[in-house]
Amino acid sequence: MVGSKGSNGPVKTAKVNIPSKSGDYDEWYRYMVQTAGLMDNRYPIRGMDVWLPYGMKARSLLDGLIRGEMERTDHDEVSLPTLVPDYLLDKESKLVSRLKHARELGVDGSELRLDEEEKGGGFSREVYWVRHAGETKLDLPLFLRPTSETAMYTMFKHWIRSHVDLPLKVFQIVNSFRYEKKQTRALLRVREIHFFESHTAHESEQGATTEIERYLETMSRLFSALKLPYLCTKRPAWDTFPGAWYTIAGDVVMPDGKTLQAASCHHYLDQWSREFEIKFLDDEGTQKFVHQTTFGMSERLLGAVVACHGDDRGLLLPPCVAPIQVVVIPIANGERQAAVKEKVHREARRVGQELKGAGIRCRVDDRNVNPGHKFFDWEIKGVPLRIEIGAKELANGSVTSWRRGTEKQAKQTFKVNNLVEAVNLELKEVSDEMGRASAKRLEESIKPLPSFRVEGEGLVFEQPIEKAVYETPFDGNEKMAEMLERGAGLKFLGYSMESYEQERACPFTGSLTCNRVILAKTY
Amino acid sequence: MVGSKGSNGPVKTAKVNIPSKSGDYDEWYRYMVQTAGLMDNRYPIRGMDVWLPYGMKARSLLDGLIRGEMERTDHDEVSLPTLVPDYLLDKESKLVSRLKHARELGVDGSELRLDEEEKGGGFSREVYWVRHAGETKLDLPLFLRPTSETAMYTMFKHWIRSHVDLPLKVFQIVNSFRYEKKQTRALLRVREIHFFESHTAHESEQGATTEIERYLETMSRLFSALKLPYLCTKRPAWDTFPGAWYTIAGDVVMPDGKTLQAASCHHYLDQWSREFEIKFLDDEGTQKFVHQTTFGMSERLLGAVVACHGDDRGLLLPPCVAPIQVVVIPIANGERQAAVKEKVHREARRVGQELKGAGIRCRVDDRNVNPGHKFFDWEIKGVPLRIEIGAKELANGSVTSWRRGTEKQAKQTFKVNNLVEAVNLELKEVSDEMGRASAKRLEESIKPLPSFRVEGEGLVFEQPIEKAVYETPFDGNEKMAEMLERGAGLKFLGYSMESYEQERACPFTGSLTCNRVILAKTY
Repeated sequence: MVGSKGSNGPVKTAKVNIPSKSGDYDEWYRYMVQTAGLMDNRYPIRGMDVWLPYGMKARSLLDGLIRGEMERTDHDEVSLPTLVPDYLLDKESKLVSRLKHARELGVDGSELRLDEEEKGGGFSREVYWVRHAGETKLDLPLFLRPTSETAMYTMFKHWIRSHVDLPLKVFQIVNSFRYEKKQTRALLRVREIHFFESHTAHESEQGATTEIERYLETMSRLFSALKLPYLCTKRPAWDTFPGAWYTIAGDVVMPDGKTLQAASCHHYLDQWSREFEIKFLDDEGTQKFVHQTTFGMSERLLGAVVACHGDDRGLLLPPCVAPIQVVVIPIANGERQAAVKEKVHREARRVGQELKGAGIRCRVDDRNVNPGHKFFDWEIKGVPLRIEIGAKELANGSVTSWRRGTEKQAKQTFKVNNLVEAVNLELKEVSDEMGRASAKRLEESIKPLPSFRVEGEGLVFEQPIEKAVYETPFDGNEKMAEMLERGAGLKFLGYSMESYEQERACPFTGSLTCNRVILAKTY
Repeated sequence: MVGSKGSNGPVKTAKVNIPSKSGDYDEWYRYMVQTAGLMDNRYPIRGMDVWLPYGMKARSLLDGLIRGEMERTDHDEVSLPTLVPDYLLDKESKLVSRLKHARELGVDGSELRLDEEEKGGGFSREVYWVRHAGETKLDLPLFLRPTSETAMYTMFKHWIRSHVDLPLKVFQIVNSFRYEKKQTRALLRVREIHFFESHTAHESEQGATTEIERYLETMSRLFSALKLPYLCTKRPAWDTFPGAWYTIAGDVVMPDGKTLQAASCHHYLDQWSREFEIKFLDDEGTQKFVHQTTFGMSERLLGAVVACHGDDRGLLLPPCVAPIQVVVIPIANGERQAAVKEKVHREARRVGQELKGAGIRCRVDDRNVNPGHKFFDWEIKGVPLRIEIGAKELANGSVTSWRRGTEKQAKQTFKVNNLVEAVNLELKEVSDEMGRASAKRLEESIKPLPSFRVEGEGLVFEQPIEKAVYETPFDGNEKMAEMLERGAGLKFLGYSMESYEQERACPFTGSLTCNRVILAKTY
């Protein structure tokens, strides 16, 4: 399973019946994650799985993409402790409750002070508590971070003195923990999360807003690199992250028609900084509170890659996160002459070295099993390109390449004297084809919400609501949104960042609006 | 402090009084770790500090060296959950108690069965417990891993079926947790540990022994790369890691004359595999238990780098882990003509680009502060090489380079047409000089144990014992070792892997032995 004899080695399955993606999607997903060697779900705690070598490589490549984006946007990497003192959770809970209460009353949150007993918002119901060490009861109870606002802002208070310290932009890639009560699922709903989070502080609301815009660009670049069909929406007020002014999330449209929140960013205004006393001296010597943002993602991105691109033959990994981009297979089992066999194997090794030398992640599979077995193993793992070298290729100075396509495999023959360029072009074509397929799927996934009429508190739709993503013009209030959610049996995902170009009538109010609201079943 | 405006940016101290390393070593160390921007100790949990951007970069570079070694020795990277079910700790405790008891009785541990109440060995007194999540009491109590034998071997049982699965060699770089009761100290004694651990399983005892030999080579390569003066000893039986047959550790000789255990590896025989039922079918179809090893290191390596190489001007980082290897400083403050100033700055940027292009980690410091201030800031951070460019250099087509030496700075002038080669040579010279200084310090640190005579249970030494590392021939028993420890007030570190070439007389038994025992005060 782990494949230590050759890291990320092939799975040790012979040909078996792979569950069908269209037939039993959940079983297919579970099978793929485990059999391709991404995660092992046999660890004895539910929702906490083991990253296997192949999964770790893919994760490291994804982390590398994220670090690259953080470098591009001038964020510094830090790492905070995993444990957080309990009083910070109280502080957060009070802030969140006050803001929620204020929203309901329609007043400014900073004016409200809540009684102790009213607290309990935020993460208090889903944190893991550490109250003992060895036989000792800790004086200061601790919890495992579910996210790091409270810990981070405790440090921000030390790090920020004046406007020359701003903007402060940091990120960390760490494990976070949530006591998930819903059904867990590898990479998609877990209790120990491989978590990316960035936190920024700015002089002004506008500074924070500009950072949010940069995060949307980063989100777009990452989802594009991974060829994921996604929608970007501003969450409605009642679904905004606790403590945030507003939340914008990236949701992947999954193969089962549901959406998966895979990234989100939050504009905090100065709401947290008031609670955590993060002040700076502006250039006129006035003390002010900073405005803040965060941006978060997790291994869900990898889960989405598995779910969206895989098929009944296995995974298909975008070359940018594929631990092995090219597998080279010598085909010489049928050769009677040992000398020819040896030459074929030597040529395969030479080709492997050449590709590695050019920075292509390549593996030569010279195991003593038949080629069909090898093809099967590497298809499960989603290697984008397979190169075969036999006696014929050897004689012609060529290789045969098979592109693992989104629909069918594409065969090509390349001369070895121009191999690196040809392979890079094929890898680019895999990416491009995946991108086109993803764009097409996204376009086909979104349907206009059928017309309906209101009957009492309920809605009667003219056509049945399917398991799909729906869009509709909307400028109604929270109560109307609730009716819509209940009536359609869908979640009010939010306001698309791509609003309608021309105004359309809201089906509730009848007034014209460019607001394009997305509704879907969600993970 | 964090320096977000330019990652790893200079510290924001003006000239201040740096504590003296020889005067107040502890205060000097504390000051350096914080002021150089490695760690921030103001997080509200003792022994759990924040990795600052500069510290994170150094840590990542060190992790990179370790990953390189793991790649070289065919280990695969995995990542196991942070939490471990409580029953695995019981299992470990029982194993450890049984082995300890067996050692005392001089019998084979696998024969002994202990009562429940006799357990309690291993890590049970220093683990953090998680017994609640939200308001829920967990059915399965969990603890934060102090190390991962128990979790890892639970998976090994799934991963190993037959001899073709062996050797199994994996590693992980994760956080581990120990409720440390001694005085904590950044990087050196912490409660959340940045932990490297590898675990292997082999068909035979000999396979495991060979792996231990490879680990000693890896240890040597890493300590050499970091230019750390270190000793490699086989721990005496009573100081062997719980559950191990034997333990070999690498101890750095620190500037205060004490030694710091910074790496250790353990030969487990089949002791753990019997407890965790890790069996394989050998090529004759017989079920056998695997033989196992582990190898562990932590951020202590970075703490040792700080302590060993820094001086009263700041850190000195070996180029291989220096986040910034070269700082380029334009010197044009005194220039009256704006045009000259601009040309000097442009040349500094060009030089910076050229060095970066050649893969050298380089920073151009064009802040509007005087050069002395800049020199001070980068010396604190331990940048190995400083390049100055002023009007004179500009006119001559040269740069002035200052090598941050172990004793004094070395000035050179280089022509810009051959800069990359010259800089690489200077960086190599920094490394080499650090290596020579380290070898010299090691040699000077080890003293022959003064002669003594036994009086009752005590020892009377002919010369006073200093705070130093001592060596002595020794072939005595455990009781004699205890007398030695108590009498000298030193720890019996273990048997040096470099034994004496010629036999010498053991001061207790008088018999001749090549055993070279190391005694020292330890961290």
